Amino acid sequence: MDVRAGIVVTGTEVLTGRVADRNGPWLAEQLRLLGVDVGHVVVVGDRPEDLLGALRFLAGTGVPLVITTGGLGPTADDLTAEIVGRYQGRPSAPDPELERRIASVVARLSARRGWTADPVATAAGVRKQALVPAGAVVLEPVGTAPGLVVPPVEGRDGPTVLVLPGPPPELRGMWPAALDAEPVRRALAGRRELRQHTVRLWRTLEAQLAATLREVEDGLDGLEITTCMREGELEIVTRFDPGAQASYDRLLAALTERHGEALFSTGPTLDDLVGDALAAGQTIATAESCTGGLLAARLTARPGSSAYVLGGVAAYADSAKEQLLGVPAGLLAEHGAVSPQVAAALADGARDRFGARIGVGITGIAGPGGGTADKPVGTVHLCVRGPDAVLERSLHLPGSRTAVRDRSVTMAMHLLRELLVGGPPA
Amino acid sequence: MDVRAGIVVTGTEVLTGRVADRNGPWLAEQLRLLGVDVGHVVVVGDRPEDLLGALRFLAGTGVPLVITTGGLGPTADDLTAEIVGRYQGRPSAPDPELERRIASVVARLSARRGWTADPVATAAGVRKQALVPAGAVVLEPVGTAPGLVVPPVEGRDGPTVLVLPGPPPELRGMWPAALDAEPVRRALAGRRELRQHTVRLWRTLEAQLAATLREVEDGLDGLEITTCMREGELEIVTRFDPGAQASYDRLLAALTERHGEALFSTGPTLDDLVGDALAAGQTIATAESCTGGLLAARLTARPGSSAYVLGGVAAYADSAKEQLLGVPAGLLAEHGAVSPQVAAALADGARDRFGARIGVGITGIAGPGGGTADKPVGTVHLCVRGPDAVLERSLHLPGSRTAVRDRSVTMAMHLLRELLVGGPPA
Repeated sequence: MDVRAGIVVTGTEVLTGRVADRNGPWLAEQLRLLGVDVGHVVVVGDRPEDLLGALRFLAGTGVPLVITTGGLGPTADDLTAEIVGRYQGRPSAPDPELERRIASVVARLSARRGWTADPVATAAGVRKQALVPAGAVVLEPVGTAPGLVVPPVEGRDGPTVLVLPGPPPELRGMWPAALDAEPVRRALAGRRELRQHTVRLWRTLEAQLAATLREVEDGLDGLEITTCMREGELEIVTRFDPGAQASYDRLLAALTERHGEALFSTGPTLDDLVGDALAAGQTIATAESCTGGLLAARLTARPGSSAYVLGGVAAYADSAKEQLLGVPAGLLAEHGAVSPQVAAALADGARDRFGARIGVGITGIAGPGGGTADKPVGTVHLCVRGPDAVLERSLHLPGSRTAVRDRSVTMAMHLLRELLVGGPPA
Repeated sequence: MDVRAGIVVTGTEVLTGRVADRNGPWLAEQLRLLGVDVGHVVVVGDRPEDLLGALRFLAGTGVPLVITTGGLGPTADDLTAEIVGRYQGRPSAPDPELERRIASVVARLSARRGWTADPVATAAGVRKQALVPAGAVVLEPVGTAPGLVVPPVEGRDGPTVLVLPGPPPELRGMWPAALDAEPVRRALAGRRELRQHTVRLWRTLEAQLAATLREVEDGLDGLEITTCMREGELEIVTRFDPGAQASYDRLLAALTERHGEALFSTGPTLDDLVGDALAAGQTIATAESCTGGLLAARLTARPGSSAYVLGGVAAYADSAKEQLLGVPAGLLAEHGAVSPQVAAALADGARDRFGARIGVGITGIAGPGGGTADKPVGTVHLCVRGPDAVLERSLHLPGSRTAVRDRSVTMAMHLLRELLVGGPPA
């Protein structure tokens, strides 16, 4: 894997976290699967000298291609195209034909949204977006901003810079045309596509895996292995040239032999495993207290989930648990709303009220308030009931309200995985 | 604002997007509010030479402080401490006292999780985490990894490097101690704390705002203004030294005069506005079809929301709309599940079944399947009903399933804002 690229993500709103960057990781992943390695993603604010500094740094790492994202909007602080042009020795000038095309897109968008825009301000914005460095390849706008491919001016060395817009749908929509542009193809010549496989273990410590990898490392030539621990799941991603397939086979055999009891997937994510199993003729309904609809939202995030998700109730108030899910008032009074008994009654209520084959009940204390000595913040009870089996679980989770809610939902997904697919106990 | 810092985020899992980086933006924001400007956040993988390259680049920008996050775990690819030590001319050596403290933390965590760990592998991991560059300040672990403050070895110039762990709760927990460490204090001497204010406009184009800013720019000395457009909301963040308060007052007056009809907040987020208004004696229940519980999850994400969220139903199946929410079968047959009439019936059903003062109904087609010529993907109908008013809205949203769901929920939040707080129509 000898061909490399660098990425610059621009925008003060990204640098300060008001908007999470989704472009850098997406581009890095796309490039790696194409056999192009990314060593650095540099996030810069809207200051021109910081963008120039990042371009100089990445050029200095010797990469043949630098990709920038963002800074192509209509406002004065959107300076990427002009700065990249200057850096490459190609001053920018208006492209009247492009300006007309952008103006018609902007007019159509404004009309569709029913917004009234000051025509002078709009025209100034369009004119700015149609500035093109001399000799650059223009990539047609997916939204309003065109992309640009800007090689160094003739006679000068250095990377070609691919300038892409910031909104992820626009960037992704433009990606195929960008890869197809002649200067980009030239910059990435010699790349070799990689294979990538993911193995997922449940509740295995990274240190345990590290010990396994040390023992078998002699057989793993040509593999690039990265591991990531998240909410109890250890994700092991391996990339390799097709010539190293035998090494990967050895790795998978070692993982299966030493961690078979924890291995729950050699590919699909937890959500895919559960979703595919549900799609094979099951129906499901949820009853959530502390997670307030998060499990239903996660299950319905998958396209096609309407075929098996009948629905869910977020029952925050006790009266809602009683009236919408039939949880007996006596049970609530005797054990409290946060109890294994109520989790089971919620799962039963969800099955019953929605007429679903599988019901899930979650009740707990997400905090920061509401904890007691008996039932501290982080106490969560879950129940998953199918036609022939019931799985129950009580947890004491650390962390913030968000962490407790997210982990409770992940645990519910693992209980569903255990019920539907098998594998290690949730 | 003369004091600057640079940030390096390490980890192949971050570079490739398997884990979203939350540390770079958080640190940049903390530093900026302390009056320390961040020009670059560099994300690097696990390759030592890439981390070294990033350290050299940031040192070359002249910053007195570089902060690294991640790469302090027990596995062999966690190399940050050693590389930073080498870069600063301070070779690492075991710290036996620290090793004992980490070992006792690891033992406690393993016991609590009920995991069985191979003692040899665990001890090797602990030993690695207790390697400290000579002369570095150790920051006590919040999880298992200690932080480090590593100034350049005596007689050498360059930035002090603050080495922090990757898990956000550990990093954030260690931040006060890090700021308090003497070499960090010295590096940041001369900083001046900033004021920050946020103004939010609903449905205003960036180009319109740009025109306003151009007209009043002479009065805005000393303000750093960044804007960000997201789901119809234009967020304007202004940072300034307290001496520039008069400039900010002029900016706010101009925004109020020219965009008053769109200005819905001079501070709180949409979620805070709605949550605070609900907390003042309201109760709410939701009935969601295409958004599948996302609105309920968003409303209950706020601490204390159990005081006013009674619950919600995610009613995917028509039978669930009928049985759990009382939507008449005739209405579903006549107008279809995706119709303004059913949105209104869902809002009414939520109010009625949960006994809430406010009910919200959402029905639509999130896609990618399920669209027809009459009702294409992206068709969404919303209804918010309070005791004295009803607000309805029909949308044709572009984008992916996720985008349609997210925007529908945001629109529901704006309808709630309009009902409860007033301001621009949703």
